[in-house]
Parts: sequence; structure tokens; C-alpha cells
Amino acid sequence: MDTKTKLAKGMVDRMGMPGSTFSMTYGDQPKYKQDIKIESHDAAAKFILDKLKEFKVIGADDEIKGIGHRVVSGGNIFTDSTLVDQHVLDQIRSLGDYAPLHNPAEADGIAAFMKLLPGVPEVAVFDTTFHRTMPPVNYLYSIPYEYYEKYGVRKYGAHGTSYRYLSKRAGEILNKPLKDLKIIAMHLGSGASMCAIEDGKSLDTSMGFTPLAGITMATRSGDIDASLVAFLKKKLNVSTDEIVDMLNHKSGILGISGLSPDMRDLEKTRFTRDRSQLAIDIFTNRIVKYFGSYAAIMHGVTTLVFAGGIGEGDPVMRKRICDQLDYFGVKIDAKQNDEEGIERIISTPDSKVTVMVIPTNEEIVIAEDVVKLIKK
Amino acid sequence: MDTKTKLAKGMVDRMGMPGSTFSMTYGDQPKYKQDIKIESHDAAAKFILDKLKEFKVIGADDEIKGIGHRVVSGGNIFTDSTLVDQHVLDQIRSLGDYAPLHNPAEADGIAAFMKLLPGVPEVAVFDTTFHRTMPPVNYLYSIPYEYYEKYGVRKYGAHGTSYRYLSKRAGEILNKPLKDLKIIAMHLGSGASMCAIEDGKSLDTSMGFTPLAGITMATRSGDIDASLVAFLKKKLNVSTDEIVDMLNHKSGILGISGLSPDMRDLEKTRFTRDRSQLAIDIFTNRIVKYFGSYAAIMHGVTTLVFAGGIGEGDPVMRKRICDQLDYFGVKIDAKQNDEEGIERIISTPDSKVTVMVIPTNEEIVIAEDVVKLIKK
Repeated sequence: MDTKTKLAKGMVDRMGMPGSTFSMTYGDQPKYKQDIKIESHDAAAKFILDKLKEFKVIGADDEIKGIGHRVVSGGNIFTDSTLVDQHVLDQIRSLGDYAPLHNPAEADGIAAFMKLLPGVPEVAVFDTTFHRTMPPVNYLYSIPYEYYEKYGVRKYGAHGTSYRYLSKRAGEILNKPLKDLKIIAMHLGSGASMCAIEDGKSLDTSMGFTPLAGITMATRSGDIDASLVAFLKKKLNVSTDEIVDMLNHKSGILGISGLSPDMRDLEKTRFTRDRSQLAIDIFTNRIVKYFGSYAAIMHGVTTLVFAGGIGEGDPVMRKRICDQLDYFGVKIDAKQNDEEGIERIISTPDSKVTVMVIPTNEEIVIAEDVVKLIKK
Repeated sequence: MDTKTKLAKGMVDRMGMPGSTFSMTYGDQPKYKQDIKIESHDAAAKFILDKLKEFKVIGADDEIKGIGHRVVSGGNIFTDSTLVDQHVLDQIRSLGDYAPLHNPAEADGIAAFMKLLPGVPEVAVFDTTFHRTMPPVNYLYSIPYEYYEKYGVRKYGAHGTSYRYLSKRAGEILNKPLKDLKIIAMHLGSGASMCAIEDGKSLDTSMGFTPLAGITMATRSGDIDASLVAFLKKKLNVSTDEIVDMLNHKSGILGISGLSPDMRDLEKTRFTRDRSQLAIDIFTNRIVKYFGSYAAIMHGVTTLVFAGGIGEGDPVMRKRICDQLDYFGVKIDAKQNDEEGIERIISTPDSKVTVMVIPTNEEIVIAEDVVKLIKK
């Protein structure tokens, strides 16, 4: 951590599903990838630790001084990163209502490492923390106020760990104090959101009480008319939970296109499939609308940051979005935009908004919080 | 209709509730108002007709050549105004899913006049008609496409009759062809919505599948995270329909303020009640955000039109909204803004956006459609 050097990066993908894999990059080695049946978080944790030792990234377990975990929702309990004990773990799991796709699985992941490496401190870093600066006017819904008081119903947002990194990094790259920047950051991945960042602080963000709300995502609907939940429940003759499940898992660009939740598949097929193009257009449309609304509440915008799988890796989508932002004086340089995923400015010198691609780095934010908390 | 003269204007208010009243203005008489117990649409229709004759606005029933009705939702059935027969009436009633607060009651109103004046043509003018020009990218939700095909799930919007009038009138007042105008119109009443109007056509609007969605209203929530329907259903242990009912009837500025659905009550109490101010701020916030998003998708905005009870009658609210739109170059003239509810321009000559107050006139639009259809 003194030199902030990344020793290794890896993942277990498709756990418990057919085609699960383990992959890792470390040192100057090419990416290691292995098809391996992994059924549980316990097995995954053990496999990762074994591979770290096998590849000599670490010599022994006791070299690990802390483990950081990204947790999507801190709900109405956690306002900052925290050391995890059994009580905290139960609380993280109890916040499943706030992030049904994420929190329960993340609790399982933390529990696996607690079992595997007892005595090593675990730290939870919440994606909601960065948004704690939002003012009530942006985080409250227009529903009876008592639901906020009694049940913590409000906008929490997500991707906060990413936005924390992106806004800080944008200031460093531009060599400007954050107080001079009005940033609209877009974390466009499978989960996708946007954030209005003023003076380095989250002013508003597109995800809501859960990560379902906001812009169109891979499989999530983003904003819809809430009365559709009741209408579709009746039409489909299913439970309310099944409708919310459909909105989380079968909607978004998958639902519109009828093809894939992966933007790369839509980019490939858009000339031959109308509904691939339609999904792309709706995805773009929602981003453009949120951009306008955030420019409005910040009374301006100095900086647009693209991040996330699509934001970093899809120059065609970046161009599509930026072309629609001409009213705001956004102009990008085709050559800079087409560069591969490195950190850079892609706007022209005369663009009124500085447009940047910043590969996000939630891991370094998490690692820094781990160091801070285990030193306390 | 040759001279488009209004002979009388009146209403039955609070029908079926304590304190129901009938009121009417006609000729140069002061407003007539009577407390009268009216329990049904049938009784209301008869009372209105009797009063029109009593006050000699008409001499006999057969002077009435057509009756126009504003209907909130044409749903996926009606794309334009239509003569009403029993089949059409059944269809209007069947669209209750699309506008639960409005369509069933409106069908009752039409039925009452059909019974009272058989042989006089009834015309339904739908608030959704104006929005039929919206492109799919704005009217489709990011949910499985089949729900659009099978159940007509899409954005329909409302207040279309008002927007039809406002956009035409804005062009006339400014003496400019509609193709040169990018209008953001705000119909701010108890139901409140906004519309992006390009070339005289609705490009996007804030209400959705039903009039629940969009900006904060008197008792309606506007946009929320749809997963809150499932969350609150569990917490409150009620049905999904009851949640949607709560979002329609107990939310909005009433829900936030805990005081009143009437903006006038909040303006009066905002210095002494934090939650009155909060409700005002949230109402403003959502309008400002939609303004930004519509400026974005129209690639500019030339004209802002205020209408509806709040839009026409609350200069403090107009100022509050316009002051937050400084980024878009909106500047209003304090003196013009403070004038009473007449049609006028309230922006300064150097404002980048021409801001207007236009008392809306849905009745003339409806009357014109009646004349057109009964002549066919």
C-alpha cells in the first residue's frame, strides 16, 4: 500500500452456474484463466487464497493484514466504511431489501473470508457512503414523510465507491480543486448510474432506494411508472415480488432488445435488428435526460466522466451520447475517443465541457479504507 | 362557436362529499355559487342543465348540438377525439387501469348526459391524443418489449388537451411558426406535468402509463423507485393496490408536508413549517430536473410556458422555478411576473428563453373537436 502497487487482480465468475471460471492477472504474467466448478462463496474464497499462494503473490496467509469488501447498500444503518464483526455482518445481510441483487451475496462473501481467515480484519466499504452528502430535496421521495422516518425510505444510490474515485481523479488530472468542478459522472456497466458531483460531493444520483431506479441498465428497468407494478401483477397473475424480480432481471436492454443484456451484442447486431438499435437508443436517451437534469440542478457542468465497462470500453456509445449533448457545448475528439481504455481527456479544446474517460478503480478506494480502519 | 364566445362556465365540486357546491359564471353576472347536496353524476348533469335554462344561457334543451368531454386516457385504443356510443363508452370505462382516478368517473359523466339528452352527440376528447407523436424512444419503458405488444404498456401522458392549446397559443402570441419553437410547457395544477413540444408536437411528457408518474403533484408521488411498491407493501402489510392508491392519493406535496395538497396552504405556512418549505422545494426540484432533461432532448429551449392553477396563479412559485433555471438563460421580469392571471410574456428582453403565462383553455379545444366531429 505504500506504493499503491496492484499485486494481483482476479475473479470467480458465474459461481454456482454452468461455465464458472477463475481468472487472475499478477506481476507481468499473461492472464490466467481456468474453467472450474465453484458452487459456493466458501469454495470461491478458498480457491482464491490457494491460487494467490500457488502463484506466489503471497507467501503465507498471515501476510494478509486486512480484507476489503465492496457492499452495495449501507441502507439506513451505515454512513461510512466499517470493520465487520458478526453483528455488522447480520446488519449487512438485513439490508437485502435495499439491494436484493447484491447485499445478501456480499454478506456470504464476507462470511466466507471470516471463516477462512479468522483474525484477519474484514472491512465493508459501502456504495451508498459517497451519497450521504445528498440534500433531502434530492434524496426524499414525494410520499408520506413518515415512511422516511419509520422505514428509511429515501434515495441511497450506489456506485459511490466508483464515484469517490472518479471525482478525486478528475480533479487530479485537471489539476483543479474540486470546488471548481461541476462533474457529471457516468458509471456505465451492467449496473449503470449517473452522479452529479459538486465540490467533490454527491449532489444527486440516478439509482434510488435500490439500484433498480434511474437510467436503463443491462437487465434493470430504471425509472418506470410505479403503477405498472400493480397493472402487470394483475395481467401476468404473479406476485409483486415477481414483478420487481422481472424489473431487476429481465428488463433493461435485455428486455427491450429481446437479445442480450450485453451492450457489445447490441452494437454488433444493431444494423440487422431494429430492437437492438431501439435498446441502444433508449439507453442513450435516458443518459441524455439525466445529464440535462443534473446540469440544471448544478446550474452548469464543467466535466463529464465516463467509466464502467461501457463507459470505458465502448467508443461508439460515448460518441452517441456526446453527440446528443451539443446543446451543453460538449464536443469530443474522434481520435482521442477511439483510443483504448486508458485514462484521458476526449473532448476538443473548445468543448464547453471537459469530457474524460477514467477507468474506475474501486479497489484502491476500498484498500485505502481498509488501511485506515485497521490502523485505528 | 362562430365567434368562439364563452356563454357560461361552471362546475359541480365535491360531488358525493360533504360541502358539495355548484358554481357558474355567465354573461356579465358575478359568479353564482350554491351549496347543494349532489350525490351522483346523473344528478349533477340534470342540475347543470336546469341552471343553464334557469339563467337563460340556453332557452331549451334542443339548442345543445353537441357535448364535449375531456377524458384523461385514450389508452391503447383511442388516438384521436371520437363520437361516443355505448361501445365507445364501455371502452373508455375499460381504460380505468390507465387512469384510475379519472376514466371511470369520466365515463359516468358521459353516461349521465347520454341519458339526460339522448340524441345529442357526445364527443370524447382524450388527454393522451396530443402525445401520440412521441417517438418510441420516449414512450417505451425499459421492460420486456412483449408487454408493450400484448398489454399496451407504454407512456401515454396526459394534459394533452391543455398542451395542444398552449403550444398553438404560444405560436400565435409570439407570431412565430411552431417549427421555430422548442417549447417546455408546464401544466401545474393539482395534477401536474410537463411537456417537451417541438414543431408543435409532443416529443416527451412527464406523466406515464398513468398520470401517477413524473413530477411531484398535489397528492401523487411522481417518479419513485418501483421496488418501493414491494417494500412498502411488506412493511405496511397491505395490498399492492393499496400502495398504488397511497401513491395517488396520499403522496405528493400532501405526503411530504403532512399538511395540505394545496400549494396555497404551503406558501402560507412555509416560514413556520419546515416541511411546508420542504414540499415546495421538492416540487420545484423535480420541475427543474425535467426542464433540464427536456432542454437536452430538444437540443435547446426557446419557450417556457406556465399554465394550470399553480402555473397561472402562483408568481412566487414561478419565480422560484425560473431562478433555478439561470444556466439555461432564463430571466424573468419581476413586475410582469407579479401581474394577475392574464396571458403575457414574463421574461426580460435579454432572457435566452421566452417565458410566458398562458391561462390554459382546454374547453375551446374540446368545443372545436365537437364541432368538427358532429359536422362529419
